[in-house]
Amino acid sequence: MNTELTPRGFREAVRTGLHTGQTSGACPGYAQTNLVVLPQRYAYDFLLYAQRNPAAIPLLEVTEAGERLLRKIAPGADTATDYPKYRVYRDGVLTEEPIDVVKLWRDDFVSFHVGCSFSFESSLIEAGVPVRNIEENRNVPMYVTNIPCDPAGVFSGTMVVSMRPIPYALIPRAVSVTAQMPRVHGAPVHIGDPSLIGITDVGAPNYGESVTINPGEVPVFWPCGVTPQVAVLNAKPEIAITHAPGHMLVTDVRNAALRV
Amino acid sequence: MNTELTPRGFREAVRTGLHTGQTSGACPGYAQTNLVVLPQRYAYDFLLYAQRNPAAIPLLEVTEAGERLLRKIAPGADTATDYPKYRVYRDGVLTEEPIDVVKLWRDDFVSFHVGCSFSFESSLIEAGVPVRNIEENRNVPMYVTNIPCDPAGVFSGTMVVSMRPIPYALIPRAVSVTAQMPRVHGAPVHIGDPSLIGITDVGAPNYGESVTINPGEVPVFWPCGVTPQVAVLNAKPEIAITHAPGHMLVTDVRNAALRV
Repeated sequence: MNTELTPRGFREAVRTGLHTGQTSGACPGYAQTNLVVLPQRYAYDFLLYAQRNPAAIPLLEVTEAGERLLRKIAPGADTATDYPKYRVYRDGVLTEEPIDVVKLWRDDFVSFHVGCSFSFESSLIEAGVPVRNIEENRNVPMYVTNIPCDPAGVFSGTMVVSMRPIPYALIPRAVSVTAQMPRVHGAPVHIGDPSLIGITDVGAPNYGESVTINPGEVPVFWPCGVTPQVAVLNAKPEIAITHAPGHMLVTDVRNAALRV
Repeated sequence: MNTELTPRGFREAVRTGLHTGQTSGACPGYAQTNLVVLPQRYAYDFLLYAQRNPAAIPLLEVTEAGERLLRKIAPGADTATDYPKYRVYRDGVLTEEPIDVVKLWRDDFVSFHVGCSFSFESSLIEAGVPVRNIEENRNVPMYVTNIPCDPAGVFSGTMVVSMRPIPYALIPRAVSVTAQMPRVHGAPVHIGDPSLIGITDVGAPNYGESVTINPGEVPVFWPCGVTPQVAVLNAKPEIAITHAPGHMLVTDVRNAALRV
């Protein structure tokens, strides 16, 4: 992956099929987003689900029905092509993982672009906090927890979290750096013992890839923008499109601009 | 006004008509909210308007259609009675200012409870920053600006701001204290020359009361939860109910819990 690309150049590489992989570490300093696309009749319930669960689902842009192009966080970016990989859920069942969704697009689709924890990884690195998934060039490990989300309409479920192992001495710094960025999930939701949030095997993530946890390091868990996919499994809309976990849109928004 | 009351006790005083005044300084340390009530068919557009303008319209709780009682920020509080004074807009025209809206309540009403800058006033005072409207026991001055909001559906308009005069030396502290509280409007949107944001006479606010600006003080402007009322004037729904500016709901949420 060429990390020297601008966000526009990176999206161009994604759009033309040159980059279909995960995006951890892509375009350091720029915010990335998760995706949820739903038919308009589910849009109110989902917007309310996001409002009620802002740590897991911080919305950075919501498009008009039928509109593929973004206008605020990545002007001109195409919702149907500029994420490297998508997931298509039909009646709550994952049916496809295409690299674009142009042929599936409908005039009643509303797309929700959700802040992503990849956005704060460069801030952690700048602050001297190691980010293992970047060091090991892997997708971040993500887990379905037992932390309940506040339901809204047809949407309900538990929170999905991403995990980064942090050395004990750097945990306060990791918390304070990320707490300043609530629009990309903010502070951790849990630090330490994974079993307390329903994770039985930290080596077997539900999404993404496992990473090494060294002696003296603690697993630290942040709310994750894959959370809506659990809600989609429960709500079973006739169709829903999401990003494939870890395969994000790189926006034109600098992470520094998302700090409070 | 008895500022020793708990939020529950204060709401009881409001509900029984003992307190019908503005709420600046009420129950120090507890967050207050602005109100917008709309028929359900406007709810998606308004929810999107809030998502697109989070500094002016930070939503703390949205109820189910027809539900008067809050369940999160002030469990058991009654949307129709626990704000000290309401405004009723019919077809975009302000028609009444009742002290409750029980008889107007409809099964299709959705209520939006919006974070309020009164919430951070006690944090400013604790940090040594004077809050003139509390010192002078007045409602805060609020102004319609020329700062455009990002439209959504039928809702559009410019931002309303609240103003507090701050001594030059304390402006950085006022910014840093309030920036930590994005769910109650966060950092100022403008500091200094009122004409740059379309305010022609700082002594003649559009809502609330004017306060003294002493020599050596600068007017500092924060996004205000009265912003939706401008959008209601433009959208002209057949009915909309808001709080009367400055007449807030006192919630059970401690301001400290709203800090990032």
